[in-house]
Amino acid sequence: MVFASDSRTNAGVDHVSSFRKMTTYERPGDRVIVILSSGNLSVTQNAVTLLESRARPGEAAPNIWNAQSMYEVATLLGDALREIMRRDTPYLTQNNIDANANFILGGQLRGERQRLFMLYQEGNFIEATPETPFFQVGETKYGKPIIDRVVNPTTTLVDATKCVLVSFDSTMRSNVSVGLPIDLVIYGKDELRIQLQRRITEADPYFAMIHRRWGEGLRRVFAQLPDPHWEDVGQ
Amino acid sequence: MVFASDSRTNAGVDHVSSFRKMTTYERPGDRVIVILSSGNLSVTQNAVTLLESRARPGEAAPNIWNAQSMYEVATLLGDALREIMRRDTPYLTQNNIDANANFILGGQLRGERQRLFMLYQEGNFIEATPETPFFQVGETKYGKPIIDRVVNPTTTLVDATKCVLVSFDSTMRSNVSVGLPIDLVIYGKDELRIQLQRRITEADPYFAMIHRRWGEGLRRVFAQLPDPHWEDVGQ
Repeated sequence: MVFASDSRTNAGVDHVSSFRKMTTYERPGDRVIVILSSGNLSVTQNAVTLLESRARPGEAAPNIWNAQSMYEVATLLGDALREIMRRDTPYLTQNNIDANANFILGGQLRGERQRLFMLYQEGNFIEATPETPFFQVGETKYGKPIIDRVVNPTTTLVDATKCVLVSFDSTMRSNVSVGLPIDLVIYGKDELRIQLQRRITEADPYFAMIHRRWGEGLRRVFAQLPDPHWEDVGQ
Repeated sequence: MVFASDSRTNAGVDHVSSFRKMTTYERPGDRVIVILSSGNLSVTQNAVTLLESRARPGEAAPNIWNAQSMYEVATLLGDALREIMRRDTPYLTQNNIDANANFILGGQLRGERQRLFMLYQEGNFIEATPETPFFQVGETKYGKPIIDRVVNPTTTLVDATKCVLVSFDSTMRSNVSVGLPIDLVIYGKDELRIQLQRRITEADPYFAMIHRRWGEGLRRVFAQLPDPHWEDVGQ
């Protein structure tokens, strides 16, 4: 599994800042849980904080550390989101603020397969299947065509990582609301520990190279497309 | 100038159909005017019909055939859109139907340079400048990255045509709300007549070739991107 999130948040162009949108929970040999968020930052941050507050050492109630399945973790995150929404939405809507929030939740618990979920702002969720082995939340459209072309259930971790970086590169080129750094986590099947966690900044030579070579490659493929030779002009 | 529009309309998945979203007005040697529309089909169709009804032979009031500038044509189209919006919006909003509508308007009138406008649903509009030599309306995001990479004020008509087809191809691959046929119009500077007008269907061999070679080319460029070699694992 490959997880990636950008760091750009904005509440209008006057309030652009950088916040991490990825949270990881790891107990090596037992569980790896990754949460990516998009939407209203106060809502998603508060929901994750509430989820964590219920997971303090010694807590007996169901939480991320004693959950028996990723499905249960998804339910806990959805419940936390609903609680924050219930508390904050009336005040936000009073000021015409859209309280949207989406999460991608993935990982693996010992005894289970890897699982990947997407949570909607209502707190309900869906799970990825072989037909659709990836989820996107937030500013999804610019970067979707390359994922649609490359990613399938047999894609290697390395190719999936390259693809997610190319997808973010396309998105950042076309939309200023998405920006570096990118938080990246790679998780290998049944490893039950994070294989790689990396923050990709402007200074990352690999990302700079991907950016340059992908742009050059696209322009080269484009230049090699034959010109049209349409004889019929007019209606 | 290159104009292109798809033909897919939908009002929910039960009502998918094919409608032309391009209207052309041509008086060779005098004017070429092209209108592309997106949004609520009844609103955009009615606005264009109203614009045309005011251009019947012998009409003295300002209309598309006697307008002295493309700016004036944009004003006339905006006025027609506002009139339809005034008439229909209250009924649409009663049923929670979004009466959005956008137009791209471009072409050339004798004595003027080529001009390109985008009209918003409020009937106001902006004009393209050298910094942003293209407009998109409707389902714009999937197809924008390739235009951002290729199109600038010095792009040839042939390259712009290829680019718009690649852009539509990416969009159609990722979103079912956009579909063939594509209506295409090519207009050469100061020609004051349409250079080429063509409806591209599933049977078009050039589009099929572009589709195949672009997909193959992207996958080739992707496969040639070097793999990452990150040593540092962990935070």
